[in-house]
Amino acid sequence: MDTGQLELRSAVAWRGGRLEAIDQTLLPERFAVVELRTAAEVVDALRRLAIRGAPAIGVAAAFGVVLGLDERQPRTAEQAGAALDAVAAELEAARPTAVNLSWAVRRVVAAARDAGDAAQVRRRALEEAERVLYEDRASCLRMAEFGRAELAGRRRLLTHCNTGRLATSGVGTALGVVYAMAAAGEPVQVLASETRPLLQGARLTAWELLDAGIPVTVLAEGAAAAAMARGMVEAVLVGCDRVARNGDTANKIGTYGLSVLARSHGIPFYVVGPLSSFDLQAPDGDGIVIEERSAGELRNLAGVQVAPGRAGAWNPAFDVTPAGLISGFITDAGVLRPPFAQSIPLALGGG
Amino acid sequence: MDTGQLELRSAVAWRGGRLEAIDQTLLPERFAVVELRTAAEVVDALRRLAIRGAPAIGVAAAFGVVLGLDERQPRTAEQAGAALDAVAAELEAARPTAVNLSWAVRRVVAAARDAGDAAQVRRRALEEAERVLYEDRASCLRMAEFGRAELAGRRRLLTHCNTGRLATSGVGTALGVVYAMAAAGEPVQVLASETRPLLQGARLTAWELLDAGIPVTVLAEGAAAAAMARGMVEAVLVGCDRVARNGDTANKIGTYGLSVLARSHGIPFYVVGPLSSFDLQAPDGDGIVIEERSAGELRNLAGVQVAPGRAGAWNPAFDVTPAGLISGFITDAGVLRPPFAQSIPLALGGG
Repeated sequence: MDTGQLELRSAVAWRGGRLEAIDQTLLPERFAVVELRTAAEVVDALRRLAIRGAPAIGVAAAFGVVLGLDERQPRTAEQAGAALDAVAAELEAARPTAVNLSWAVRRVVAAARDAGDAAQVRRRALEEAERVLYEDRASCLRMAEFGRAELAGRRRLLTHCNTGRLATSGVGTALGVVYAMAAAGEPVQVLASETRPLLQGARLTAWELLDAGIPVTVLAEGAAAAAMARGMVEAVLVGCDRVARNGDTANKIGTYGLSVLARSHGIPFYVVGPLSSFDLQAPDGDGIVIEERSAGELRNLAGVQVAPGRAGAWNPAFDVTPAGLISGFITDAGVLRPPFAQSIPLALGGG
Repeated sequence: MDTGQLELRSAVAWRGGRLEAIDQTLLPERFAVVELRTAAEVVDALRRLAIRGAPAIGVAAAFGVVLGLDERQPRTAEQAGAALDAVAAELEAARPTAVNLSWAVRRVVAAARDAGDAAQVRRRALEEAERVLYEDRASCLRMAEFGRAELAGRRRLLTHCNTGRLATSGVGTALGVVYAMAAAGEPVQVLASETRPLLQGARLTAWELLDAGIPVTVLAEGAAAAAMARGMVEAVLVGCDRVARNGDTANKIGTYGLSVLARSHGIPFYVVGPLSSFDLQAPDGDGIVIEERSAGELRNLAGVQVAPGRAGAWNPAFDVTPAGLISGFITDAGVLRPPFAQSIPLALGGG
């Protein structure tokens, strides 16, 4: 691991014509950076969740288009257009739920297509991918500040999955708010739901907060209700993989349950995410495809068998939280409030 | 492992002056029976959860009194009385929440004390411990039948933790109902919440149902809300460690959250347990001591580190479900219905 790799502090970075990514499957036991050289390697990293988190998925896929062009070496404008189509299809099939994936791929393809000769196409694709990355970083900072203002005085926060530096190319979505509070000297206390089956809360959120010197307490998802009943939670902050036009929100499995519990305890429940995670094409949650992952993820943990091999296992990666259980969306364009069927299309310019 | 041991089908059995127990920490990877020869070994088995489940804890502790007498070898009635007091204190300190532990110990001590000479005390203690075990078996069968009648037509059941043969010396509490339904030829479908941190649902419930030829599907606790929203759950059945006089119920962490979710989806939520799990001395849930277990249980799983060692961890073993979220108690004396502040004292003869 060279010095350059050690500098990687967010999920992904572009360096020397390669996509570098922290291999998140190895944390917290091992910090390792992998170098991705082809679109297929990006797809593999996305599928095995070495790179995860909706914004980071988008950034990785954007650079995946560039890597796909470099592999195919198109020599004419026509070949470059065909290469863009092929690599876009390859990347978009990696995972179905996070809208940022197709959003970023289509954005890069649109910017590069018809740019002129093959070299121009490649140059425009890279410029647009870099723009996706820089915008993601800037967007994280805006969400963090909007969230800090919105939460003023609420310091005991429950969060789910991982929504920080490891989920974006910046400071994160929901965890970005925590970083902003900590940077402002506010004594924020984070309860991190461990997030089965892949334990992104215990493995990743705990790792990155401790790495930043912010204390964190991990709890099993089953303990969240008891924590709320004991007054240990002043707000719940989660990320999002896809938000429908009416505000129904697909996010990591377990989010919907937390929203029901928050409502029953009178605790505000915020979704934090950039406008690029909103999908005006989906009228409501029914239109969102939910990825179901393998039974093995639930039956085994780091090589240890935790359920009999013959047991059935239901392992949806996401659930849908109805808009009615969401207090507000903390976005890079400000806080969207109910009724979301009006505020969301307005914010996206599609109203 | 001899043939005798292979016959052990429930959590505990008394054989040849020793308490035999399935070491539940090793399941599902390995089925092994441990032989306990002293009260201290019983306490150790209870603390490390080799034996767990409120009724099984009670039965194990009852025989623990006999083992404690055999260790101490009292020669006079007075020595026997002192030995009973000492071993009772040792056993009752093993774990704080399940009322069955102190209930069973006190019952055996009361039956044996003042029985005459030391040999008589030992004989009476053993008889009473055997009575606790046989009554537990009979009580399981009654709960199973009451539950089957109560649930008629509801076949898609969600359960939490382990409440079956491994939690009792009989067919179980909540899972006993499942066994009765299966025995009656009803096509019962069990969703087993995996139950972090120690995965009793994934490891033990899945193991014992499959062992009995009953299909089971494991899910992460975070997926329970999504399962309910999709209509996959017609009733929730859980066990109990201690029920207060008003019906507030301490049970495995995660139970309270499931009760909130069940209510919000209009799904009946049943607590299944013998009257020996009811504690008229506790007016409500506030009076129930909740055991907090080590952070290590949450941060490590079967030797694998799943959260950074420096992360805080909140690991309560139980939570309290308010009586108002419980549809009914399926007990060995029939189904108790709201208002529980009346039906519970009446059933226990303390009204």
